[in-house]
Amino acid sequence: MSDKMAAMDHITFIPTVEQLHYTFGGAEPVMRIRPGTVLTLWAEDAYGGRITSVDSVATVALDTEDLNPQTGPFWIEGAEPGDTLAIHFVDLTPARSWGASTTIPFFGGLTSTPASPTLQNPLTERTWIYEYDSAARTVGFSARGSNFEVALPANPMLGTVGVAPARREVRSSLVPEAFGGNMDTPEMVAGATCYLRVNVEGALFSLGDGHYRQGEGESCGTAVEGAMNVTAIVELIKGGGPAWPRLENDTHLMTIGSGRPLEEAWRAGQVEMITWLGELYGLDRLDAYQLLTQISLAPLANVVDTNYSSVTKIDKRLLPAAPAYGGVHDELRSAARALGSISY
Amino acid sequence: MSDKMAAMDHITFIPTVEQLHYTFGGAEPVMRIRPGTVLTLWAEDAYGGRITSVDSVATVALDTEDLNPQTGPFWIEGAEPGDTLAIHFVDLTPARSWGASTTIPFFGGLTSTPASPTLQNPLTERTWIYEYDSAARTVGFSARGSNFEVALPANPMLGTVGVAPARREVRSSLVPEAFGGNMDTPEMVAGATCYLRVNVEGALFSLGDGHYRQGEGESCGTAVEGAMNVTAIVELIKGGGPAWPRLENDTHLMTIGSGRPLEEAWRAGQVEMITWLGELYGLDRLDAYQLLTQISLAPLANVVDTNYSSVTKIDKRLLPAAPAYGGVHDELRSAARALGSISY
Amino acid sequence: MSDKMAAMDHITFIPTVEQLHYTFGGAEPVMRIRPGTVLTLWAEDAYGGRITSVDSVATVALDTEDLNPQTGPFWIEGAEPGDTLAIHFVDLTPARSWGASTTIPFFGGLTSTPASPTLQNPLTERTWIYEYDSAARTVGFSARGSNFEVALPANPMLGTVGVAPARREVRSSLVPEAFGGNMDTPEMVAGATCYLRVNVEGALFSLGDGHYRQGEGESCGTAVEGAMNVTAIVELIKGGGPAWPRLENDTHLMTIGSGRPLEEAWRAGQVEMITWLGELYGLDRLDAYQLLTQISLAPLANVVDTNYSSVTKIDKRLLPAAPAYGGVHDELRSAARALGSISY
Amino acid sequence: MSDKMAAMDHITFIPTVEQLHYTFGGAEPVMRIRPGTVLTLWAEDAYGGRITSVDSVATVALDTEDLNPQTGPFWIEGAEPGDTLAIHFVDLTPARSWGASTTIPFFGGLTSTPASPTLQNPLTERTWIYEYDSAARTVGFSARGSNFEVALPANPMLGTVGVAPARREVRSSLVPEAFGGNMDTPEMVAGATCYLRVNVEGALFSLGDGHYRQGEGESCGTAVEGAMNVTAIVELIKGGGPAWPRLENDTHLMTIGSGRPLEEAWRAGQVEMITWLGELYGLDRLDAYQLLTQISLAPLANVVDTNYSSVTKIDKRLLPAAPAYGGVHDELRSAARALGSISY
Repeated sequence: MSDKMAAMDHITFIPTVEQLHYTFGGAEPVMRIRPGTVLTLWAEDAYGGRITSVDSVATVALDTEDLNPQTGPFWIEGAEPGDTLAIHFVDLTPARSWGASTTIPFFGGLTSTPASPTLQNPLTERTWIYEYDSAARTVGFSARGSNFEVALPANPMLGTVGVAPARREVRSSLVPEAFGGNMDTPEMVAGATCYLRVNVEGALFSLGDGHYRQGEGESCGTAVEGAMNVTAIVELIKGGGPAWPRLENDTHLMTIGSGRPLEEAWRAGQVEMITWLGELYGLDRLDAYQLLTQISLAPLANVVDTNYSSVTKIDKRLLPAAPAYGGVHDELRSAARALGSISY
Repeated sequence: MSDKMAAMDHITFIPTVEQLHYTFGGAEPVMRIRPGTVLTLWAEDAYGGRITSVDSVATVALDTEDLNPQTGPFWIEGAEPGDTLAIHFVDLTPARSWGASTTIPFFGGLTSTPASPTLQNPLTERTWIYEYDSAARTVGFSARGSNFEVALPANPMLGTVGVAPARREVRSSLVPEAFGGNMDTPEMVAGATCYLRVNVEGALFSLGDGHYRQGEGESCGTAVEGAMNVTAIVELIKGGGPAWPRLENDTHLMTIGSGRPLEEAWRAGQVEMITWLGELYGLDRLDAYQLLTQISLAPLANVVDTNYSSVTKIDKRLLPAAPAYGGVHDELRSAARALGSISY
Repeated sequence: MSDKMAAMDHITFIPTVEQLHYTFGGAEPVMRIRPGTVLTLWAEDAYGGRITSVDSVATVALDTEDLNPQTGPFWIEGAEPGDTLAIHFVDLTPARSWGASTTIPFFGGLTSTPASPTLQNPLTERTWIYEYDSAARTVGFSARGSNFEVALPANPMLGTVGVAPARREVRSSLVPEAFGGNMDTPEMVAGATCYLRVNVEGALFSLGDGHYRQGEGESCGTAVEGAMNVTAIVELIKGGGPAWPRLENDTHLMTIGSGRPLEEAWRAGQVEMITWLGELYGLDRLDAYQLLTQISLAPLANVVDTNYSSVTKIDKRLLPAAPAYGGVHDELRSAARALGSISY
Repeated sequence: MSDKMAAMDHITFIPTVEQLHYTFGGAEPVMRIRPGTVLTLWAEDAYGGRITSVDSVATVALDTEDLNPQTGPFWIEGAEPGDTLAIHFVDLTPARSWGASTTIPFFGGLTSTPASPTLQNPLTERTWIYEYDSAARTVGFSARGSNFEVALPANPMLGTVGVAPARREVRSSLVPEAFGGNMDTPEMVAGATCYLRVNVEGALFSLGDGHYRQGEGESCGTAVEGAMNVTAIVELIKGGGPAWPRLENDTHLMTIGSGRPLEEAWRAGQVEMITWLGELYGLDRLDAYQLLTQISLAPLANVVDTNYSSVTKIDKRLLPAAPAYGGVHDELRSAARALGSISY
């Protein structure tokens, strides 16, 4: 066990329904933690657990004021505006034996929406329940309009990770933005470290929106939504707060831009990566732009939320080793391994 | 050798400068070929071969009326509007020992453009030359503003593949659209089969815009551009013409939507894939939408051209076997193998 | 009569159905005319005259390959790339006693479209016929789903005015772009002079798409469509071709940008106006930007076509007199008056 | 004096710097008022009064955390979610003898922005001071890069009018949205009544961002900004809260949609107007869509803020009389006249 691990607090927090929050910013912290704390958390699903069978109808079951509940916020001791919060995901394990996905009228990527309304009727409401097989690590898709069934590999991830926004704002947990939030990228999995700029004292970090599996884009607006058991280590890096969320795993560096139209989300993530490449390799902006042009991967995150989110992703193995943030990802990775039975 | 192969014509065509074309539609065919023909072609790079060293300056060297020359068009015997042209890429091999990339004033993803002008000054013009190491199959990046160098794996691809457009239109070879064209996706590589709807008699198929390597998005507007030796088999499927280009390789099905803003390109590709899933698996639109939500990959193609292009991609291995277009990809794959030394 | 008038040819041209064209570029000129020619033309409506009663259903009646027929193209003697074509509209008079408007499935501003598809059903098809009262100069709206009726002032205008595009392109007459085309602005009325950049020798000017009345935006995609009798003077200005179409009437200067998303159309028109203010008043770009900020009017043209179009408009009366293009608008205005019975 | 007037409170409130607020939602009300109250207010300009001469440089003078201060919020007695707040502007009078406008790096319509970044350098910072001539009612433009000067008619308006948002959100006063906010339309002038949906108890209404003059679009991002003396009557209508802000004056009905891309703002406003036409005339959605197509005016509000804003505007004089909200605008207009010296 490293010295670092020796000093780690390990806190378990399972919120009551009353302790759930629906915004980034604007809520009292559920507790104060020290940098380096290991958190073991339970996160409710984005439906508030109200979609339980194929007979659940979104417009009947859901409380539209209480969508996408978050676990937190946590006050991080010593976090100040401009700092960097690093959240390393140690483990994400489905907390239920099934996940759910629905069409919701006027929500999703292939329907008109209140933000971009048309005069067309909404799509039919339909609910799909995916059995989660914890042994096989699959979720089962069953078509509703035909007899098609298929088991898909589970890929537990979190749709929503964020801190309190800047400029005194309080944003719904449905929103992805510079503060993180509802980015809905399938890259937010165990083994990844998420870097967020701290905007207010204490950072006020929350997470939620467990997905047992999601494609890139989250086309219909809802992944295989399910409650999640989450273990994460929360670390604080003084200064260096990125303009947009960054993500790192053992093989890739990523940035996540959010906005509308989608090209603006992409641009934000691209420029953030150019900045990062400059920090790591001393490249000037034009050289970093050129290099990015030839090596960037660009998997979309969501094209359904209040803002769209686009990931810019580069394979670290293409480039010389250059530890980001002084190698904090590797440290957290080691600390995570030291916590015990982690399979990734 | 299969019966199919037995019947195959094999034609080699190296265009003169005068035989190059700069549009889809509007040009006389360079020759008529039968379905099933193997074409071995040479394609000039998008610069018209005019960027030859780091001292080449785009605004001086380029003829802006003669950008992105295409090899073709080929008249396919028997092709009629509504049919499907299948182009299988057998081999793409760099035809020069170096590729080039440049910033071009007011062109690219991270600059204002004539279509979306601002009052800001253009970015500095800079040219990068990438040595192509045919043994190591790498292209060498050398930063211009610092001493950074790195060898990147080559990934020869074609930026531009298309047929004549519908509605009597003639479009610049810089444009990606429903007819294909300048889609600029790194998925357009050897081993892939591209399906395009035929819009006019004879289809009038062309290709060009060799890239020795490109990231997703083609951020600065130019990949590692280089002349290419191309071997492709051109097959005709009667009827079944897709609304948007489709792409298939041994592991994935893909659709490519193009448009602006970027979410519209994504939507076009997504709906095309929903249609395809319906064709292959009998899923109704909502079930296909749901399944796509959980399995779609969404790697961007380009965010720099007249239209942006977005790829919707699904892993065939997640789903039951269901040969698209009667298994034409596998047939073409076999035919390609029979042609000899192919390494992929 | 001015000297100018003395020299004017006056040509009347009523195309046969076979003489109509559906593209900008790509068609042989119907005739060659000298600069300064007065043209009296008949233009078919965008439906090709096929919507004739409230029982006409767009998807049955229309030939989707033959939409928006244009009268022309006219070869202008001496017109060369980079020149400016000035078209002054002398008179627009409805050529039928009724106009028509329809919903068309998946076409219009408040529906999904093929370019931005959703999975929703199309809107119901419905046709409205507007009686044109030539004495009262009104068109009569009759609701179809209730008993509401109202007479609206007629405002005869042309949706489509353009020249052949640059870069060897041929574009459908449904498209608005830098070459003009289907801009659909209610500012294109008698008394206005439209300035277009010449892209090919002879300019190849056409017009069509008569509207007896249209709101800004052309929300449902079709105005009060009707055949039109058009009298226009076509003048040639050597050089000075604008990047985007310009429009001038007795009181206002206007520029028209087209593109997607809509803000790009707006930006194009704004920068064009900044250029124009610089030409007229010697203002540098920042001063022109500032002045524009405080005086620009921004009435939308269309938010329904292949590209959207946005008008930037300034009131000449707010600024010192500064004749554009050497005062050609006033000259053409005088020449128009000299032609006789013009009511505006 | 009407009975209504007899019952009216008239409150004057001049905030101290400490009483200014920078958000919609999230601030304690400065006072509670009864429906029907006349408010005479002072509003600071969007710069916080920090731009005072042509030598003021935005990046030096401004506190970027404290932009666009608002006067309020006011708690309206009895206002509940779903109600309609009607704010009638009785008088807007410039409170200073000069207004200011600036370019601000990476802010405005013709520059890249943090939301849509490029790698280009920012525009030069420049400040323009407009002398306000209260007798002539003009503001004087003086070019900085040449000798051009012109006096422009003043048109005092408010850029920002809003209530607390729904879903527990707190938004920066720089944002326009369904709750109103920083819409920046030159239609927000004396004589107009603004209707906003109440989202939280008490409504929490604020206003600010005085402009002595602004074009449509607010191109460079800042109008002729100046502190404003405002007299407004605040009325409450139970129920009927519109989805998007509505505006009425003696001649026109207007709706204001906000969002990105700009076409989404336009769509939101269009659908809101279709709803309004349905309420007033019993038209079904398709008939209202058709009528709107032929009569809608579409002057842009802003293309520079966090969201863009688009106005849909129809001339009431084209249609049969049909008092909106039971004729509250006319009543407030009468009440305003009864207050005395109003010139409009």
